[in-house]
Amino acid sequence: MNTFGKQFRISIFGESHGECVGITIDGCPSGLPLTPADFTDDLNRRSSGAKGTTPRKEPDLLKIKSGVFNDHTTGMPLTILFDNTNTLSRDYIKLRETPRPGHADFTAMKKFGGFEDYRGGGHFSGRLTLGLVAAGVIAKKLITPVLVTATLQEAGGTTDVDAAIEVAVNKRDSIGGIIGCTVSSVPVGLGEPFFDSVESLIGHMMFSIPAVKGLEFGSGFAGSRMWGSENNDMLISTEGKTITNNAGGINGGITNGNDLVFRIAVKPTSSTHLKQHTINLVTGQMVDLEIEGRHDTCIALRVPVIVEAATALVLVDLMMLEGMIGRRFRD
Amino acid sequence: MNTFGKQFRISIFGESHGECVGITIDGCPSGLPLTPADFTDDLNRRSSGAKGTTPRKEPDLLKIKSGVFNDHTTGMPLTILFDNTNTLSRDYIKLRETPRPGHADFTAMKKFGGFEDYRGGGHFSGRLTLGLVAAGVIAKKLITPVLVTATLQEAGGTTDVDAAIEVAVNKRDSIGGIIGCTVSSVPVGLGEPFFDSVESLIGHMMFSIPAVKGLEFGSGFAGSRMWGSENNDMLISTEGKTITNNAGGINGGITNGNDLVFRIAVKPTSSTHLKQHTINLVTGQMVDLEIEGRHDTCIALRVPVIVEAATALVLVDLMMLEGMIGRRFRD
Amino acid sequence: MNTFGKQFRISIFGESHGECVGITIDGCPSGLPLTPADFTDDLNRRSSGAKGTTPRKEPDLLKIKSGVFNDHTTGMPLTILFDNTNTLSRDYIKLRETPRPGHADFTAMKKFGGFEDYRGGGHFSGRLTLGLVAAGVIAKKLITPVLVTATLQEAGGTTDVDAAIEVAVNKRDSIGGIIGCTVSSVPVGLGEPFFDSVESLIGHMMFSIPAVKGLEFGSGFAGSRMWGSENNDMLISTEGKTITNNAGGINGGITNGNDLVFRIAVKPTSSTHLKQHTINLVTGQMVDLEIEGRHDTCIALRVPVIVEAATALVLVDLMMLEGMIGRRFRD
Amino acid sequence: MNTFGKQFRISIFGESHGECVGITIDGCPSGLPLTPADFTDDLNRRSSGAKGTTPRKEPDLLKIKSGVFNDHTTGMPLTILFDNTNTLSRDYIKLRETPRPGHADFTAMKKFGGFEDYRGGGHFSGRLTLGLVAAGVIAKKLITPVLVTATLQEAGGTTDVDAAIEVAVNKRDSIGGIIGCTVSSVPVGLGEPFFDSVESLIGHMMFSIPAVKGLEFGSGFAGSRMWGSENNDMLISTEGKTITNNAGGINGGITNGNDLVFRIAVKPTSSTHLKQHTINLVTGQMVDLEIEGRHDTCIALRVPVIVEAATALVLVDLMMLEGMIGRRFRD
Repeated sequence: MNTFGKQFRISIFGESHGECVGITIDGCPSGLPLTPADFTDDLNRRSSGAKGTTPRKEPDLLKIKSGVFNDHTTGMPLTILFDNTNTLSRDYIKLRETPRPGHADFTAMKKFGGFEDYRGGGHFSGRLTLGLVAAGVIAKKLITPVLVTATLQEAGGTTDVDAAIEVAVNKRDSIGGIIGCTVSSVPVGLGEPFFDSVESLIGHMMFSIPAVKGLEFGSGFAGSRMWGSENNDMLISTEGKTITNNAGGINGGITNGNDLVFRIAVKPTSSTHLKQHTINLVTGQMVDLEIEGRHDTCIALRVPVIVEAATALVLVDLMMLEGMIGRRFRD
Repeated sequence: MNTFGKQFRISIFGESHGECVGITIDGCPSGLPLTPADFTDDLNRRSSGAKGTTPRKEPDLLKIKSGVFNDHTTGMPLTILFDNTNTLSRDYIKLRETPRPGHADFTAMKKFGGFEDYRGGGHFSGRLTLGLVAAGVIAKKLITPVLVTATLQEAGGTTDVDAAIEVAVNKRDSIGGIIGCTVSSVPVGLGEPFFDSVESLIGHMMFSIPAVKGLEFGSGFAGSRMWGSENNDMLISTEGKTITNNAGGINGGITNGNDLVFRIAVKPTSSTHLKQHTINLVTGQMVDLEIEGRHDTCIALRVPVIVEAATALVLVDLMMLEGMIGRRFRD
Repeated sequence: MNTFGKQFRISIFGESHGECVGITIDGCPSGLPLTPADFTDDLNRRSSGAKGTTPRKEPDLLKIKSGVFNDHTTGMPLTILFDNTNTLSRDYIKLRETPRPGHADFTAMKKFGGFEDYRGGGHFSGRLTLGLVAAGVIAKKLITPVLVTATLQEAGGTTDVDAAIEVAVNKRDSIGGIIGCTVSSVPVGLGEPFFDSVESLIGHMMFSIPAVKGLEFGSGFAGSRMWGSENNDMLISTEGKTITNNAGGINGGITNGNDLVFRIAVKPTSSTHLKQHTINLVTGQMVDLEIEGRHDTCIALRVPVIVEAATALVLVDLMMLEGMIGRRFRD
Repeated sequence: MNTFGKQFRISIFGESHGECVGITIDGCPSGLPLTPADFTDDLNRRSSGAKGTTPRKEPDLLKIKSGVFNDHTTGMPLTILFDNTNTLSRDYIKLRETPRPGHADFTAMKKFGGFEDYRGGGHFSGRLTLGLVAAGVIAKKLITPVLVTATLQEAGGTTDVDAAIEVAVNKRDSIGGIIGCTVSSVPVGLGEPFFDSVESLIGHMMFSIPAVKGLEFGSGFAGSRMWGSENNDMLISTEGKTITNNAGGINGGITNGNDLVFRIAVKPTSSTHLKQHTINLVTGQMVDLEIEGRHDTCIALRVPVIVEAATALVLVDLMMLEGMIGRRFRD
């Protein structure tokens, strides 16, 4: 449900406008040096501020509540909280009768019988990814020298991201984007047969990130239109190095030692400043809907660091399973 | 590892040229009518025979070894075996030194230290999907009236599938394809917050199917290039009906009552009749490689029924979790 | 690891002298009325104060951090924290070289490489059971009218508990006890075949409670010395009522509709005021050890409410699995 | 449900009078030498034949269906089957209306709606432990030099086991027994905090064995009646050696390097040759019941090898988790 991972297991909790959002990591090796400063860079990368991101500014103050002692991980569950401070919940109350298109308003209400905390998207808010990013910081440290890098490759259908955002802001509409992720220095042999293939685990994780609607490894959809002789990657070294990397670094669900490569489709932000139409659940009538409040023109801008975290979380678990990372750091 | 699902839990085992392949289903409700005849249609859809599929013909004789009594499921683990009869293992032995491009030969050897059963791809063979299809038959019965339909939408980059296969056969090369899947009569409210979103679970499952390298829901990659106002689906009924279905039937990871829609990219068959090059792991020299034996020109032809099974397996588990399917059939 | 349960899943975290202890509950049905006042009685039963319990007094102030909105559960993860306020960590630092007999000092140091938070027992402290008790309060509400009652049946080998404690206090030694637990109004059919029998799940859970070293169901050890004809419980009604209850309400791992009955052995508190001997890990010499600080003469006094909570947590999960409790409260 | 273990994961299936019973092991390291002859001794220890055990004689012919290649484990799921050959199902059909005291007849019928395979106890039969014993053989090889030894310490309340059985046979009644288990050469540090303590996992596993109704570690129930100063084990070496072993080798849920010691109460065989009374579920009348067929006077005679297997299965999983056993044998 809200838990992912076998040996390095993360559990996410909290609501956008409740007391806090947070995450618990169970199974983190003991002895890893860790201080709040380690999180600053990645949290900043995720936070808003750039053009195209929401003007809602929160300090994202991270509190380590357990599992760290004398600036090292203890091996016990590590809980991290982010208190919510800058919330304007009145924006959302009136939306209850008129579910916003593209959001979880309607589905959450049906699933949870109307008891869900709907303010600011509640548990479905992108704010929940704060915990993911924090856990990802720890995972990245553990998997070193494996290196995960994600970047926004296009937004609104163009590689000229800035231009796309400027147009969208002027149109008062929103746009999506495509994020590429590359992992280098990947050891051979990660991934488990059948259901826990590397693609399966990355797929599971990536589609947990709000707004992700597509994923392809290596040549992906384009590869399905190639000849087999063209799509196959020729092995040129006994360590598994290949000339091309159409497989995205994975054969039979197991890493082959080449870079792990995949791409992610992020849908346009569901909230736009344009007038939309929706159903009023009480009256059964179609109504106009204008979404006030603060939101991102292009949420995809903030997603690369989340993708990196998510990827590192998959890898750390696989590396622990394979014994490449021990229960005590640098065993 | 080789297990998927929480309440309706499948575990797959076997090797292509070993004694058998099979599957165990744990948590199947009791009282479901079930006989071997129920499996015939889907197993035939999966089996080879059409142009573009391998000439290897196996009877795929299904044996129910446990969990069925008096033609009804008992509620106990249901084990199904398919004995392997038509195997030509000598084809594969000489390939040990020269890993085939696109296959798991190299990665499996590295991961399992050379102890893996390499014959015919062993545990990595597409033959393992027999168990998936069989389990899918049971899942489809349980989720009725929810209906899963997958079709091959294009092969070799064209919607004229027959032509594409003919060209590929003549070229002695292989091709891939794209499969569309639509689920109708989906109840609102399936899917769990965050890590067990419907997209996450389908993603996990689909990327377990050999040769799958891409997945997109609803408008997917194309949607990431649309305006938000364009990609959002307008709600037009209090039951959640929308005009468009760019979300693929899922908001916030939860089904919204519209059709569940997704597309899958299947890579070209890794084995082709063309000469390829690879490394000899013993000599360290590049060598020519011609893959003999029987293989599919377009494995994607056989994947739709597997996609249907895989989808039904995700849905039955979510519906049991939600209490929509009870522990005793038709409770 | 620190998680228990399938559908109603609890995850425990925190350290005795760290910032807090807490618990996250994932899978709690939505719509259950819940306020902090609901927890008062059981937390008071667990807290110290009676003769034979530690003079360390903490307010045990419970904070609900997520998963509750408008005084009802939301169906999202429910996180509860208890801040630590009254800690005297200096008592423990000097104990690092000289592991206390009966405690986890030695084993934790070895397992976690010395990085564990050793203050006050850290994650191994009985204080962690605060979270269990809190989660148990929620579980008890959900399983109503199933009723769990645990009582201290003997302490220090006698049913005259007060006398036993008085003697032990005077001797400056510690004692253990035996707790009996009875669950009434248990539905028939809880428990899953083989590994998730009711006994297995209760066994798993009970032996997680610090200091528990024995468990028997129904006639238990005494039953193993009876004749079969004597130990068998005669069925006298079509609802499964039996005259005796030597099975403790369980046949074949499944509840039979009679009371669920089991007994638990709690070892004497490991800390005593008497002088003990231990090894100095640095010098390798045997040394005298006097444990200062506050501790319970008879920790078993505080365990019944924990046993009740633990039992209710097992039952709520089984009842959800069986569909007896829905995803929305009082569905 | 029918699965146990995290990295070394076993799944049990089959029915007493169905086609077979069996087990699948997922996560077994590759490269372990393994042939059918390895199983002979332990299967013989489990099988009937001695006075006090059932005259039903089955060859218990083991078939390895997957996961072994060239007499070594492959690292893939390892499935073992035992076909059922010697079944006399007509004995059981007439018992449907009159549930046998002590058996799962009533509870299984209620839980599974009457669809369960009731013949010979079906999935609840002790015959299912064949798979456990087989998996235990593999586990024992992997954990070497850790050595598990279980023995029947008393039967029918006396340590003179032979005499007790003779009396019981003559009385046409059944008896239970107590089994002691000792594990030597246990490494320090096995067991996970809180819910996956060594006691919890062994508790979970032992109570899965049919007929087990009690479990105590070290001094257990007797220890709960001792003084703390008496029950504490004094550390006398820097490796954790203690003089006494009242803790049964476990502190804080983690192994301390001393022998792991526990005792198990096995109830008397539920089937006896004496006339019993039960309810007729159809007529609602009390009726006499005489159980024909073959059964053990003292099932506890056959349980020690099962306890050993079960213990080894817990330990192999913990040792893999801790990295003491690698993914490739003798890494």
